[in-house]
Amino acid sequence: MARTAYVNGRYRPFADALIHVEDRGYQFADGVYEVCEVKNGAIVDERLHLERLIRSLSELKIPMPMGLAALGVVLRETIRRNRVESGIVYLQVTRGVARRDHAFPTPEVAPSVVVTARRLDPAGNEATAAKGIAVITVPDTRWARVDIKSVSLLPNVLAKQAAREQGAREAWFVDVAGNITEGSSTNAWIVTPEGALVTRQADQGILRGVTRTVLLDAVAAHQLRLEQREFSVHEAHRAREAFVTSASQLVMPVVRIDGHTIGDGRPGPVATALRQAFHQFAEMS
Amino acid sequence: MARTAYVNGRYRPFADALIHVEDRGYQFADGVYEVCEVKNGAIVDERLHLERLIRSLSELKIPMPMGLAALGVVLRETIRRNRVESGIVYLQVTRGVARRDHAFPTPEVAPSVVVTARRLDPAGNEATAAKGIAVITVPDTRWARVDIKSVSLLPNVLAKQAAREQGAREAWFVDVAGNITEGSSTNAWIVTPEGALVTRQADQGILRGVTRTVLLDAVAAHQLRLEQREFSVHEAHRAREAFVTSASQLVMPVVRIDGHTIGDGRPGPVATALRQAFHQFAEMS
Repeated sequence: MARTAYVNGRYRPFADALIHVEDRGYQFADGVYEVCEVKNGAIVDERLHLERLIRSLSELKIPMPMGLAALGVVLRETIRRNRVESGIVYLQVTRGVARRDHAFPTPEVAPSVVVTARRLDPAGNEATAAKGIAVITVPDTRWARVDIKSVSLLPNVLAKQAAREQGAREAWFVDVAGNITEGSSTNAWIVTPEGALVTRQADQGILRGVTRTVLLDAVAAHQLRLEQREFSVHEAHRAREAFVTSASQLVMPVVRIDGHTIGDGRPGPVATALRQAFHQFAEMS
Repeated sequence: MARTAYVNGRYRPFADALIHVEDRGYQFADGVYEVCEVKNGAIVDERLHLERLIRSLSELKIPMPMGLAALGVVLRETIRRNRVESGIVYLQVTRGVARRDHAFPTPEVAPSVVVTARRLDPAGNEATAAKGIAVITVPDTRWARVDIKSVSLLPNVLAKQAAREQGAREAWFVDVAGNITEGSSTNAWIVTPEGALVTRQADQGILRGVTRTVLLDAVAAHQLRLEQREFSVHEAHRAREAFVTSASQLVMPVVRIDGHTIGDGRPGPVATALRQAFHQFAEMS
């Protein structure tokens, strides 16, 4: 099937989805993005994603390129044109095209908007979740504002690649204090030997993941003991369970961290239960 | 005059200088760049810029997109087609176009190459240098590998914008120890009350600027006392002189730092002498 992308007001054949070389997203990483899950052709947690988009744009003083309703229409139309039933929709907004200069361009410069959508294989994702994934830990070399979902993702790229080269699927960043912040494209969670579910508090050290936020409702409903706090690499290595969350992987069990087997090396009951329950707590639109 | 850009093997009218939305430079800031001065139609310090490009690519494991000689031809042809006598040539290399995934794509994916050139007004630059510029200091929020000249420039954008909003032309980053690392697009230098010229050592905390490197030869030839070391904001505020260096601004005197007047508020003799001497130490090609 021919893929289509939305680029600055037009739906284009995917091969012709082009932006200018002086788009500030290309020259300065001066833009933000969102990835939403698509399930049964609907966007999962659209409202939370768009609220976060507004916050990211606001923090960077990039104007909203269009109203929220219009943006929702574009997301849905891109999904429809690509006939995505299960998959993801990707939205990127940058500060627009202007002669290269670090400082912001004049206010007349309109933000650029790109939307793409693609199918993901739910069966493949489930098969991975049934086995669980390995993660490694790497130093958190990122900039100070990772709470903004910007396309300034080079350290995340290098971390993910390091994971792949070590046979792992994700890399968890470790701050200077030896605590895990989050994964290169996921939030990080562990279950302690005492049965507490732990994930880092959403301060400036992590991105406030939408899947993370929604999962907190599932955690409450399951009456699990939750601790939003820092946790160390050492604590992670001796965890009873671990998992990561993201819009594309949902709740993905972790069975190895830095080569240490977690629990009995299979997905744990908390991760499995939360994965199954997740969509009951999500909003479809 | 119609501008032209080189994009992945072709010279295109500037308006048609387009890259794909899935170029990893756009989605991940997964690329590097160089800006070279053009003087009398020739590239200043091409060899040093291309050596640094090779290092940046190597650190990120992005393959060289073509041989150095071919790259030199493209730079010169872009300059020629844009009839740039005085100005800059901009070169960006990214990891190429691939389906969005943080980890590196397969080796078949070719890096993207973009080259643009534009005129700068030497008289305008000289007029600015005759008056000197104001700088502010801001916290260094950047990632740990600023020694790589990557397009991961969002903190630099925000710093430069903060400077402009405060009536300054540049922002100097300050590390957690209170020491100045470098400017958002320049290297930072001061002259102490005792007459020593100070700039930070080229460790991982700064980019090894080509203009900085060449200027070290001028400094030696002028038998100036040089200290490559950390220096604090406090030391900068009470400097006798200050200046910044970059390929587009060369040696640009600084006359105010955070509102503190430097020296007598006019460009100092060391900065002025080094600015005049700079091109004697540069290589033209």
